[in-house]
Amino acid sequence: MSFMLPEKTSSSRPSLIREVQERGAKIPGFISLAIGNPSAEAIPQAALKNAIKKVTSENLLRVFEYGPTGGSVGLMELTKQRLSEKKKLPKDRQAFIMLNGSGHGLGVAARTLCCEGDEVYFEQFSYPCAIYAVRAVGGKPVGIPVDKDGMIPEELEKQAKSGRGKYIYLNPNFQNPTGLTMPLQRRKEIYRIAGEYDLLIYEDDPYGDIRFSGTAVPNFKAIDIEGIVLFAGSYSKTLSPGLRVGYLYGDEKYIKPMEVIKNVMDGQSPLFNQLIVQYTLQAIDYEKHICRICELYKKRADAMIRALEQNGPSAVQFTRPEGGMFMWVTLPEYVDIDTFYEELFRQGVGAVKSEAFAVDGKKTGHAFRLNYTYAPIEQLIEGTTRFAKAARLFCRE
Amino acid sequence: MSFMLPEKTSSSRPSLIREVQERGAKIPGFISLAIGNPSAEAIPQAALKNAIKKVTSENLLRVFEYGPTGGSVGLMELTKQRLSEKKKLPKDRQAFIMLNGSGHGLGVAARTLCCEGDEVYFEQFSYPCAIYAVRAVGGKPVGIPVDKDGMIPEELEKQAKSGRGKYIYLNPNFQNPTGLTMPLQRRKEIYRIAGEYDLLIYEDDPYGDIRFSGTAVPNFKAIDIEGIVLFAGSYSKTLSPGLRVGYLYGDEKYIKPMEVIKNVMDGQSPLFNQLIVQYTLQAIDYEKHICRICELYKKRADAMIRALEQNGPSAVQFTRPEGGMFMWVTLPEYVDIDTFYEELFRQGVGAVKSEAFAVDGKKTGHAFRLNYTYAPIEQLIEGTTRFAKAARLFCRE
Repeated sequence: MSFMLPEKTSSSRPSLIREVQERGAKIPGFISLAIGNPSAEAIPQAALKNAIKKVTSENLLRVFEYGPTGGSVGLMELTKQRLSEKKKLPKDRQAFIMLNGSGHGLGVAARTLCCEGDEVYFEQFSYPCAIYAVRAVGGKPVGIPVDKDGMIPEELEKQAKSGRGKYIYLNPNFQNPTGLTMPLQRRKEIYRIAGEYDLLIYEDDPYGDIRFSGTAVPNFKAIDIEGIVLFAGSYSKTLSPGLRVGYLYGDEKYIKPMEVIKNVMDGQSPLFNQLIVQYTLQAIDYEKHICRICELYKKRADAMIRALEQNGPSAVQFTRPEGGMFMWVTLPEYVDIDTFYEELFRQGVGAVKSEAFAVDGKKTGHAFRLNYTYAPIEQLIEGTTRFAKAARLFCRE
Repeated sequence: MSFMLPEKTSSSRPSLIREVQERGAKIPGFISLAIGNPSAEAIPQAALKNAIKKVTSENLLRVFEYGPTGGSVGLMELTKQRLSEKKKLPKDRQAFIMLNGSGHGLGVAARTLCCEGDEVYFEQFSYPCAIYAVRAVGGKPVGIPVDKDGMIPEELEKQAKSGRGKYIYLNPNFQNPTGLTMPLQRRKEIYRIAGEYDLLIYEDDPYGDIRFSGTAVPNFKAIDIEGIVLFAGSYSKTLSPGLRVGYLYGDEKYIKPMEVIKNVMDGQSPLFNQLIVQYTLQAIDYEKHICRICELYKKRADAMIRALEQNGPSAVQFTRPEGGMFMWVTLPEYVDIDTFYEELFRQGVGAVKSEAFAVDGKKTGHAFRLNYTYAPIEQLIEGTTRFAKAARLFCRE
């Protein structure tokens, strides 16, 4: 017996985020800025606990049995109402797929929309799971060059001329990993190109609600006259990541076949978890809760920026996110990133190499993603200071 | 804008099971024997409710945050202990992936083990989601002819000579859809062929515990000296389908890379749901609970058999399952199955056409899957009687 795992599998390494966590766990006093978890303070524990009590006090059989394949109608209605009122997303002929966290939708979309050899367009550095989802079905993830406003329309158009494109994957708000937000004008240009080249847009917006400065920019889905935008939303960043409740929202003509595929992929998502989210939303002032998270994160992002400014060399550049959970710190080209990465471990701080987010796996970049939401604030400042000091050792002033 | 869904998607129809449910919902007094749900009486509601209370009374933050990517260590330990003691499965160098229901593992396995053009071997009629999972990654599901003991070794070997085979998918116990169980000798032959042709075995055994007559047959995993069997187990049939807790168990060298793939596919499965299962297992006499389910289902299977014997024509053949949830009723070749299927709706009873389970989509068969676990017992008898009477109209005596 000599079963060989296919190359696509044996070349899949545990993520670089996990690598940081695992190596860091062995280093005394190590501070990780690697994982993208919400702050524990952002989780409304008491409200969630009450919601669990409410679910438990009702007819539990419907929770324990296979529930409705589509998920909780109540949660879908609440969500739709908010998307419509707060974000001005269209309501007519739109449908939901409830998911085990919004990331779950990446595989559903790739499986539904994309065949062997089809292209999917990403910002040059993007969310690894979104990239893998496309590869998993034999599709070809293509990284499109970016500037400070995100994906460059001319570069997208150049690539879209191949005629093999199926969709564009984007985090328009506070992008993972760069923290950048795409301005409205850029969104409109990208949208026009999508329409022209028959591309759908997968607007993955888990951070969209967490804006702590600047002005909200309309979502792609809000300008979606043609019904080509699939909007992925999540309750992981605002209520609880552990419950795994997210959704895809879009035109019925795409969502319905996706739901069929999702059902054969892994069946329904647990109703229990959806009801906990639903009852929490019904009980709390959700907008106020989000405001509290924003205040919390603003303080943290500011602290990280200060620590970088005060301790880092001027040759280091970093984004100044208006929301979300991540900052992108770029080192000069002459710095050897792998050596610097090792220095970070020596200094006792962990961050994620840009390589982890590189769509083509080649242009791996000279940057690091730093998370400012998870570590306790003193550790956040100390960790960022360590990062900044390490950078000093490697940068010419 | 004219985005076209790929052919693989537009040819995916909602399942025939769903079709029965949806058409049946419009027929007054309709009885469905189509869906494969456990009986509500099989769900230990009080114990599950207590378990929820216990989870809620503890530190809930660990439940609300992203939990350990691997899942609950406690549940894995409990499960491993039982698999080892009750089923004599190996313990050394084995690992778990905790899943959102065991069906979730089908996609993980296909994604990890199978590439474009690779073959996966199934019993001629098999579980549709398992078949789709292989197609989703461009693999080729191949139906192997069966007899009353399941997959025929000589036929498997003939096909395996292609050299493109990756794994064999099987329900060894009370197969879905036929209800048949593979004898030990047959398992050994299949296992030998797997070893010889470098095939893994995906032993999907969600019904294995529910044996209500005859003698237990050792699992493939129990005779797995070479470490080539992936064992998929579930708490959906014995505790609660709605909580969506299942697992894959197998040799570390396959499970570890599968876990990497699973994590990029849809991240962790909710810890909350796993803890509910874990605390329930710790609180109840699980073996006694399973015995109760078996008694319940034996009564139901017997009732279905009686109704078929008393009311059906002798030309109709059916399996006599020793466990599980399904019976397979075969009509003579001369019966036009589609016409008969319509007659069932007219008689007010629903069952699943064998076509739904046909691996190659061509040899669609002359049989129906009847579930005996879900409908209340009077309805079960009445529905089966309607089925039998419909068969009378179509069969020559």
